[in-house]
Amino acid sequence: MAEAARKQRSPAAPRPVRCIVKLGGAAITNKGKLESIDEESLRSACAQLRQAMSESDGTAPEKVRGMDWSRRPGDPADPVVDAEGFAGMAGLGLDSNFVVVHGAGSFGHFQASRSGVHKGGLHSTLVKAGFVATRISVTSLNQEIVRALAREGIPSVGMSPFACGWSTQRRDLASANASQIIESLHAGFVPVLHGDAVLDESLDCTILSGDVIIRHLAQLLTPKYVVFLTDVHGVYDRPPTDPNAVLLKEIEVDDNGGWSIVKPALQGNRKEVEISVAAHDTTGGMETKILEAAAIARLGVDVYITKVDTEHSLRALKGDVNTSSDDWLGTVIRAAK
Amino acid sequence: MAEAARKQRSPAAPRPVRCIVKLGGAAITNKGKLESIDEESLRSACAQLRQAMSESDGTAPEKVRGMDWSRRPGDPADPVVDAEGFAGMAGLGLDSNFVVVHGAGSFGHFQASRSGVHKGGLHSTLVKAGFVATRISVTSLNQEIVRALAREGIPSVGMSPFACGWSTQRRDLASANASQIIESLHAGFVPVLHGDAVLDESLDCTILSGDVIIRHLAQLLTPKYVVFLTDVHGVYDRPPTDPNAVLLKEIEVDDNGGWSIVKPALQGNRKEVEISVAAHDTTGGMETKILEAAAIARLGVDVYITKVDTEHSLRALKGDVNTSSDDWLGTVIRAAK
Repeated sequence: MAEAARKQRSPAAPRPVRCIVKLGGAAITNKGKLESIDEESLRSACAQLRQAMSESDGTAPEKVRGMDWSRRPGDPADPVVDAEGFAGMAGLGLDSNFVVVHGAGSFGHFQASRSGVHKGGLHSTLVKAGFVATRISVTSLNQEIVRALAREGIPSVGMSPFACGWSTQRRDLASANASQIIESLHAGFVPVLHGDAVLDESLDCTILSGDVIIRHLAQLLTPKYVVFLTDVHGVYDRPPTDPNAVLLKEIEVDDNGGWSIVKPALQGNRKEVEISVAAHDTTGGMETKILEAAAIARLGVDVYITKVDTEHSLRALKGDVNTSSDDWLGTVIRAAK
Repeated sequence: MAEAARKQRSPAAPRPVRCIVKLGGAAITNKGKLESIDEESLRSACAQLRQAMSESDGTAPEKVRGMDWSRRPGDPADPVVDAEGFAGMAGLGLDSNFVVVHGAGSFGHFQASRSGVHKGGLHSTLVKAGFVATRISVTSLNQEIVRALAREGIPSVGMSPFACGWSTQRRDLASANASQIIESLHAGFVPVLHGDAVLDESLDCTILSGDVIIRHLAQLLTPKYVVFLTDVHGVYDRPPTDPNAVLLKEIEVDDNGGWSIVKPALQGNRKEVEISVAAHDTTGGMETKILEAAAIARLGVDVYITKVDTEHSLRALKGDVNTSSDDWLGTVIRAAK
């Protein structure tokens, strides 16, 4: 065993992580349809990630060489492997210092809700079965996302929080060692994590959401920025289906957790909105997202929430967001200066 | 963080692990065909595992309730979920204190050999791509094996050695923390590990074989017995395709690593065979298997090597092997008394 040497070798990532990206479940799956991936959104997100990673000096080759050399289900064709092409490359030409975390969308939720995994209690045979079923579903999605990234030439490696030994205590993270994530980044890989069923020290088990994982990783890795890709343009002051909904383009968070909406200028007492008011969308997932985003912003890390498969998402992934220009649609959450 | 409490709570598994099972790549995949599972062998292995786990007091329900509640690729049917059935069960009625490790067979080898992942050198773009491609392939197989076990009502959880943070130093295990495996066993789950591409402290990366994983886990968990399921009846004195090949039914290993063949009685100088002689089969995988099996036997743990999908494999999985009877086909490797 060389545990000591290993720990010494990797106290932290050598370069700061550039970006942690959340691929929201609503963005990459068809939410109303059991275990259905939104292939076009996923493909776009992966292609935009590649563009964002491409070195500005133009060393990234234009031809994308895929790293998924496995059969596609139902496709009898042999996978395409350009081994000679890879062997002739001096390097990938990618700044791959990114971490990807994804939600579950139409994967996992069905299995978890049928069994009540989030409430715990593994003495119940139903909960135990649901734990197994939920993990099968979310790891299936993880596998597909790793493959979609690899097809874009991104050196992605799947890492399940449960397998990494992450566990909770009354749903708060209790143990979440990131050393393997850091080692993978060192080695030039892009770790791909996901919301997962995990063991809980009080409840036996529960669901650990992708948003909680993102906040924890932001604390540990202090990325330059964090991007949430979702299915709406950002955070609104009311459900985005409401025709009067206003997109909140810039939110400042102070040290006490208070909020102010910097843009747009809202009238009177709407300037300081309660999270519970702002944090509402029809998917029901925005509230946690905003709470986690605010916690990240308080670390001094800018958070961009924007819609997948748009010019806005590409700019967010590149970290190239200018809130004074009117042509960017999205929400920036940052610490008050 | 409750790391300290967590470590204190789980210094070892509460009950000794009953069995570590290796599902050999040759046993559960069609070796000549890229990424092709031998569905019948896999189904049989999972069904026999369930039989072996069934409590002898007859509390295991006859009706198998599956824990794979996900869609099958290409099958539009909704998955069958018997939530009410599970909710009405007092318990699974299974002694699930087993660990499953599987090989790669026709998964992973193609990707690894095209890129030379086992030789290391992540500065090479080809090796980096091959690392990603190999992991995609072997984790696809892991997912299918977890699902096959879950369909037999076995509470299986996939755990990738790479994601668990396992790494090597010149191909020997350097870091292989099993605490999450032990936690999973505590919680009543069956961990399912696999041969994987991992980081190597000297070579950057390499391939960690399922057989090396088995030996390490046997050392840590001291199971009652270890079973290797393969595609031949056991270890022969020459390639099993040779019509004169003799099945070695019982091998004793002494403290110095010396061997003797106890059964059958061989003539003259064939009684003490070199590993390199005995350790040969057409798949090329038997040599490592025997070296690892011998190392396990020296711990005092009986090792059974036998053919998948036979009455012999069921008896091995139950730990019910009697080498004095003539109707068991397989190889027992044990420590000399």
